[in-house]
Amino acid sequence: MFGVTILGNNSAVPAFNRHPTSQLVTLNDQLFLIDCGEGTQTQITRYKIRQSKIGYIFISHLHGDHYFGLIGLITTMGLLGRKQILHIYGPAQLQDIIHLQLSVANTILPFELAFHALETESIIVDHPKFTVSCFATQHRIPCWGFIFSEKKMPRKIDRVKCLEFEIPSAFYDQIKNGQDYYKKNGELIKNEWVSFANTPSRSYAFCADSLYDESIVNKVAKVNLLYHETTYLKDMELRAAERFHSTTIQAAAIANKANVGKLLIGHFSSKYEDLADFLTETAADFQQTDLAIEGVTFLIK
Amino acid sequence: MFGVTILGNNSAVPAFNRHPTSQLVTLNDQLFLIDCGEGTQTQITRYKIRQSKIGYIFISHLHGDHYFGLIGLITTMGLLGRKQILHIYGPAQLQDIIHLQLSVANTILPFELAFHALETESIIVDHPKFTVSCFATQHRIPCWGFIFSEKKMPRKIDRVKCLEFEIPSAFYDQIKNGQDYYKKNGELIKNEWVSFANTPSRSYAFCADSLYDESIVNKVAKVNLLYHETTYLKDMELRAAERFHSTTIQAAAIANKANVGKLLIGHFSSKYEDLADFLTETAADFQQTDLAIEGVTFLIK
Repeated sequence: MFGVTILGNNSAVPAFNRHPTSQLVTLNDQLFLIDCGEGTQTQITRYKIRQSKIGYIFISHLHGDHYFGLIGLITTMGLLGRKQILHIYGPAQLQDIIHLQLSVANTILPFELAFHALETESIIVDHPKFTVSCFATQHRIPCWGFIFSEKKMPRKIDRVKCLEFEIPSAFYDQIKNGQDYYKKNGELIKNEWVSFANTPSRSYAFCADSLYDESIVNKVAKVNLLYHETTYLKDMELRAAERFHSTTIQAAAIANKANVGKLLIGHFSSKYEDLADFLTETAADFQQTDLAIEGVTFLIK
Repeated sequence: MFGVTILGNNSAVPAFNRHPTSQLVTLNDQLFLIDCGEGTQTQITRYKIRQSKIGYIFISHLHGDHYFGLIGLITTMGLLGRKQILHIYGPAQLQDIIHLQLSVANTILPFELAFHALETESIIVDHPKFTVSCFATQHRIPCWGFIFSEKKMPRKIDRVKCLEFEIPSAFYDQIKNGQDYYKKNGELIKNEWVSFANTPSRSYAFCADSLYDESIVNKVAKVNLLYHETTYLKDMELRAAERFHSTTIQAAAIANKANVGKLLIGHFSSKYEDLADFLTETAADFQQTDLAIEGVTFLIK
């Protein structure tokens, strides 16, 4: 399963029982937390997520609604006796904050906390089956988006056909990589005759907080699912720009230009109790749009 | 009204929809927050408390379940445009944490945040009608309890009687202070003939986290309401001591020795879903006991 579960979809001030930003990505049987606003540990419990399976936490930026719940989550993991390493990726100063808060409490965690400062746009997790990379977004303070991409999977061998065409098993790796085969007599055996395409590789981009910024387009081009913030409805374009945020139709414009599969919108301002207009306005310009509703898991297809 | 409203009654790991420690004292039409665990701002909203009326916040110690919600509350107060000064009392390092978290977010609060480091047992708020003082408790790290005490109120003048006995108004202040009056002819006018007793002064002591410590007894003697933690039931006395916490019967023992009016117990361990045994065990030794149930206001009488 490759999907993203929404734990918090609201902007800075909690309201209408909506919570500050947090999302949980499930990929390759592992859990990855993106952002961790206040109360995230309670949301994790509410949605019956196994906290111990979270191995990586990515913090986009150091506005409180994106990380004030992190120290509580880490502390709880320690109190519950976690042993396995926890990787945290975020702006360098986050490490100072965590260390200060652990130190004043005389807390020694029973697990290793590996902190990785985000400094340049790059691959930050390189797994045999997927990567996570970070990219800069334009916000009031340094801010990072994250892309989860499955690696291109090798083709699958059709063993019956390979035996039929007498292809030696030593050549199977090349078949998996898409190569054709030439028999000793020069006869061509085309790759697609002896192998199947594997699951296509999928990708999810989390765009963090951002003003409308077309330089994002190339960074997230053709992802299967794009999360883009829509703090405001379209009539609030000026306020959005002032506060380094985006509107509904700006998110739709990025989705269109980047030619993504689906768009997920969130980080709704506490001005709005009803979210229906967010969907209406965005979907008018980009039909494949979903609201990031808390508790819902969106599959990446 | 002089009362305390429970916002969070649980110990470190949130569980069973109970929240980490936070209490709101209402006194003299002002609101005072004691401790501010993660999610306190949401609890404040849930119980329809006017956040803007909170002028003072007291943080007992720097374990996360007593202050991780503070930075979120401060930030929200700023986002909502608070103008009036906010006083925070707590261990000195709390100021470093707050400043670091505000600074990395480039946040400039629109109100003055006056930080007061707790260093010695003393009166920390001296209002004409009441005082707040702090006292040390024995916990794993430096920890403070707080006592809210109304000042002894002057007696009320009985104007009709004062006129009848021809007491000059210049002498009224002495009447309020309990003095008798002698007329020019030497006739004695007893104070109680011309004045009424005012409301008796009341007091509330918040004992923070503490192991069983009889040196607390003198500090909280005869308060009308004592909050004492009961993290564990009585059969867990050893674990309580190891972790610098108390049991039900230990809280009752302190209440008895200190001869307090009523006892309020809380900071329940996440081991316990049902709290009934806490009340049974404590009330067996000190009858006037209440459970600190979230959302309930306990009047100080």
